[in-house]
Amino acid sequence: MGSDSDFPVVKAAIEELKAFGVAYEVHVMSAHRTPEQAAAFAKATCDNDVDVIIAAAGKAAHLAGVLAAHTVKPVIGIPVKSSTLDGLDALLATVQMPSGIPVATVAIDGAANAAILAVQMLALSDPALKEQLIARKAKMEAGVLEKDKAMQERVAAL
Amino acid sequence: MGSDSDFPVVKAAIEELKAFGVAYEVHVMSAHRTPEQAAAFAKATCDNDVDVIIAAAGKAAHLAGVLAAHTVKPVIGIPVKSSTLDGLDALLATVQMPSGIPVATVAIDGAANAAILAVQMLALSDPALKEQLIARKAKMEAGVLEKDKAMQERVAAL
Amino acid sequence: MGSDSDFPVVKAAIEELKAFGVAYEVHVMSAHRTPEQAAAFAKATCDNDVDVIIAAAGKAAHLAGVLAAHTVKPVIGIPVKSSTLDGLDALLATVQMPSGIPVATVAIDGAANAAILAVQMLALSDPALKEQLIARKAKMEAGVLEKDKAMQERVAAL
Amino acid sequence: MGSDSDFPVVKAAIEELKAFGVAYEVHVMSAHRTPEQAAAFAKATCDNDVDVIIAAAGKAAHLAGVLAAHTVKPVIGIPVKSSTLDGLDALLATVQMPSGIPVATVAIDGAANAAILAVQMLALSDPALKEQLIARKAKMEAGVLEKDKAMQERVAAL
Amino acid sequence: MGSDSDFPVVKAAIEELKAFGVAYEVHVMSAHRTPEQAAAFAKATCDNDVDVIIAAAGKAAHLAGVLAAHTVKPVIGIPVKSSTLDGLDALLATVQMPSGIPVATVAIDGAANAAILAVQMLALSDPALKEQLIARKAKMEAGVLEKDKAMQERVAAL
Amino acid sequence: MGSDSDFPVVKAAIEELKAFGVAYEVHVMSAHRTPEQAAAFAKATCDNDVDVIIAAAGKAAHLAGVLAAHTVKPVIGIPVKSSTLDGLDALLATVQMPSGIPVATVAIDGAANAAILAVQMLALSDPALKEQLIARKAKMEAGVLEKDKAMQERVAAL
Amino acid sequence: MGSDSDFPVVKAAIEELKAFGVAYEVHVMSAHRTPEQAAAFAKATCDNDVDVIIAAAGKAAHLAGVLAAHTVKPVIGIPVKSSTLDGLDALLATVQMPSGIPVATVAIDGAANAAILAVQMLALSDPALKEQLIARKAKMEAGVLEKDKAMQERVAAL
Amino acid sequence: MGSDSDFPVVKAAIEELKAFGVAYEVHVMSAHRTPEQAAAFAKATCDNDVDVIIAAAGKAAHLAGVLAAHTVKPVIGIPVKSSTLDGLDALLATVQMPSGIPVATVAIDGAANAAILAVQMLALSDPALKEQLIARKAKMEAGVLEKDKAMQERVAAL
Repeated sequence: MGSDSDFPVVKAAIEELKAFGVAYEVHVMSAHRTPEQAAAFAKATCDNDVDVIIAAAGKAAHLAGVLAAHTVKPVIGIPVKSSTLDGLDALLATVQMPSGIPVATVAIDGAANAAILAVQMLALSDPALKEQLIARKAKMEAGVLEKDKAMQERVAAL
Repeated sequence: MGSDSDFPVVKAAIEELKAFGVAYEVHVMSAHRTPEQAAAFAKATCDNDVDVIIAAAGKAAHLAGVLAAHTVKPVIGIPVKSSTLDGLDALLATVQMPSGIPVATVAIDGAANAAILAVQMLALSDPALKEQLIARKAKMEAGVLEKDKAMQERVAAL
Repeated sequence: MGSDSDFPVVKAAIEELKAFGVAYEVHVMSAHRTPEQAAAFAKATCDNDVDVIIAAAGKAAHLAGVLAAHTVKPVIGIPVKSSTLDGLDALLATVQMPSGIPVATVAIDGAANAAILAVQMLALSDPALKEQLIARKAKMEAGVLEKDKAMQERVAAL
Repeated sequence: MGSDSDFPVVKAAIEELKAFGVAYEVHVMSAHRTPEQAAAFAKATCDNDVDVIIAAAGKAAHLAGVLAAHTVKPVIGIPVKSSTLDGLDALLATVQMPSGIPVATVAIDGAANAAILAVQMLALSDPALKEQLIARKAKMEAGVLEKDKAMQERVAAL
Repeated sequence: MGSDSDFPVVKAAIEELKAFGVAYEVHVMSAHRTPEQAAAFAKATCDNDVDVIIAAAGKAAHLAGVLAAHTVKPVIGIPVKSSTLDGLDALLATVQMPSGIPVATVAIDGAANAAILAVQMLALSDPALKEQLIARKAKMEAGVLEKDKAMQERVAAL
Repeated sequence: MGSDSDFPVVKAAIEELKAFGVAYEVHVMSAHRTPEQAAAFAKATCDNDVDVIIAAAGKAAHLAGVLAAHTVKPVIGIPVKSSTLDGLDALLATVQMPSGIPVATVAIDGAANAAILAVQMLALSDPALKEQLIARKAKMEAGVLEKDKAMQERVAAL
Repeated sequence: MGSDSDFPVVKAAIEELKAFGVAYEVHVMSAHRTPEQAAAFAKATCDNDVDVIIAAAGKAAHLAGVLAAHTVKPVIGIPVKSSTLDGLDALLATVQMPSGIPVATVAIDGAANAAILAVQMLALSDPALKEQLIARKAKMEAGVLEKDKAMQERVAAL
Repeated sequence: MGSDSDFPVVKAAIEELKAFGVAYEVHVMSAHRTPEQAAAFAKATCDNDVDVIIAAAGKAAHLAGVLAAHTVKPVIGIPVKSSTLDGLDALLATVQMPSGIPVATVAIDGAANAAILAVQMLALSDPALKEQLIARKAKMEAGVLEKDKAMQERVAAL
């Protein structure tokens, strides 16, 4: 994440990864304040066992793009809503990458989805993870069906 | 792609995949006009050897999200600019996915990046592809350096 | 509705339908989490006595469009404001439907109007409902005239 | 339509209605330049056999809302793109109606969908029209499948 | 105003007019809920001693435009911010009037300026009002100079 | 106008004023390039027979606001569309004036309406101008009715 | 600043300048309410020892542009978020300056950066200031590294 | 510039610098394709005689921010309009920098102003440049006055 103030958003990604049993490390790292550490971190992923990078940043959110510039591993960008412009600035600064350097962008503050997307990538070569994804999908479906049932009582009580 | 009118945009993705030697199939498939075929196609990918789906659509671009609803494979969304709103509608309809169902969104009309992102995902378990990505990155870098050189002459001529 | 968190918005539609004495059922149903149930529900309306579908969803609001893909009954979409972008994402994802599959979109969070619009459709072949619509219109008018009267005292007191 | 300059957009609605064999009349009528005629026209629809009104207008598109103010028949609004703001002004001025007076809004320049939506409303009490809608949906589906087939040759030729 | 919920905004206009000693009447009047009263009110101003109309409305703010359609007196529009879109909908629906029917639009929630603009119009033929405007301008200037002075102490205390 | 490149837009205002027989002068005058001349021009209007100022400018359109700062005569602002942002920048920079200094803003590129609004202001104390406005309104109405008639033939020919 | 209500934003700039030991003066000064004082202030900077002007204003933020019109010293603009439109109006009104009169615009409410930018300009001819900038950069970097360390504990505790 | 396709925009900056007799070098340099060269270039400016950096980039325009991350010299950002979103993405990605790392942003495609702003910074310690700026300002003013004169003939000929 670009700043520790992004933690309340990023937390949802950590919790998803934990639930899937996927190893992760979490860093505060800034495209603008620690550009060399960020570059070094990203460059190292070309050879180490970091498979997917998730970068969360707000405002002129350059972090995901800057990391993507230094690696060939997939980079997922989470645009973080800040005090002005409702996250539109972070969304455009994250998603509108020039040809050659993609950032896989998820919704504004969409940290859970960033983690699930990362798991989907890893699951391409990990059948156990794929089973977990299928199970999670089934659980989500069951959850909605249950909410639909609960809604019937709520509506009847109107 | 949601309509064959998206082909001029999507073509760049096909060319990238071809250059990387990655197998692909191309379909016109609509979340709204052929919803069952789209659902069936996506559902099948849970078990077949389609590893990554790239979906391109304009306006209220539901295609990527609808495919993502039916699969656990990663889905990449290309928002396509249409005759109004400059692609903003397609971008928001593609990227703002609810928690649980991510779409890896690239830039408006960013088809080349969609392909490269797909290759990055596949390269996680394919060292040869990873080498190709590194080579492509080096070539891009060399290309910019060359353009920088050419620019010197252009500027000198002013 | 796409999620039970949309209920505070959707409630206004239920209350309108109740006031008009129009039969309704209410469901939590997701274009992304329960796509098959959503498709089945919409497809069934081609033959059953559900005449109008009202779909409320936020963010990349695909629900109305996905239901419309599976039915020939009119589908009304309520874009729901969520935590970012002030409902603009849901509005564009609901209204900008491709040619062939319309969604009758009302204002962001405009649930009462969704219900009235549904009643207007039903009233095309139900003279009693039409009379109720005329009476409601007259009551609205009377309400504004009364507020205008009350305003005179409020202004006099300034 | 609010101005005869909207005709190129509106034409698509007329052609749809004609294809469905639904009777229609077409008017140039302005919320601002002929407000009384517009009001009289809309008011008359409360009692005559005009079942659905389709209103197309650009910029501060008040036509649909003004007609809706005078009738209890459903009013469909087509926001028309004009020379500035890419239709966003017309979209917001059409869709953001206050509680009590709905306008069923379709996409910017979405005239064909406005007609189909009108037909869907009429089909609620007209089984023959409903069959036509089902047939049209099937034809659309077939059209996409055909385009998908054609695409295979196009892609093979790359 | 289109609804009595606009009163907190409109109040600033009333207070300005009162301060200038300009006669006014205040009405709740809706382009959509009381369209006939609104039309009748506006039409009457062609002949009565209402010189300027100020119309405040939110969302798809048609009120100012609808009144302008029925009069040749100047109409000032105040776009009112509502619960979504931060007033942008009301601004565009008020200002983007088609050729022939102007609305003199002020800032979102800019009620005080609407009143001052009305006074400026009246002052064209009322030298006493003009003197008041000059005096008010001088007072505003003095107010800023005073605040600048106060700021010096505030800054010194940092 | 802020630049002579605004002339194609402003011309419509001149033609309207000419048609109404209202005296006018036309200037190129810049809030940024000739700020002193602009201030002097505006300040002089407090005492001379310039009754209404119409200011047209694009991008960060400060001209209308800067003139309004120096006069108590009404200032009408025409936001002019330039090469980026479709006029939204000029609209916001013209209309969002702070309390105390109104600018009567018309539509983007809405020069004809700026002139008509000016005439409406002048007509408050000029009955002959008022009659002209009424006549123009009637002519507009007749024009639309005629177009409606012509439309019938156009539609019949489809 | 254009109004003393901008002080909570502007304060961050003052604190930065103080920390750098750069002399400053702070004024409330309005492009619209005290245009002559603003012009006089800016014009004087052509000859006095004011090297950089920082102007903060909201809504139709003309202050920076108006000051820039009267000086050849660099003018930095801080767009200030106000009660509507989330600062977008102030941003566009500040940054979209016409050719010839630049305003160096920073982020919405970005007062600290305005001060740092001013210091960067002054440091071009002041090696001591440049050293301070380098030290501040190092401190920022250290701060992020420290936060990264703290994050490790925070994450471990999840 | 981030790509040689930005040259038609950047050219205006080069011409201004040339007219002022200020030494410059021009580079194609990408935050994403040549991140190391960009970082090295920026870092070198901390010690070499490059005083001001002007960076032009489109879409998710990270170039200015990335250069600013590596230097304490002022960085001016030119957001470049590309094929979608009319430059809004580049503007937000350039201007919305986080606290500590300012980018002095000029208008979309505002290359001439970027150069003038750079000259204003250099002129702080270069009286001859300051004289040139004053002369340029006077020439601009004279140019507008001349255009105003020419306008009189143009208007008389209407």
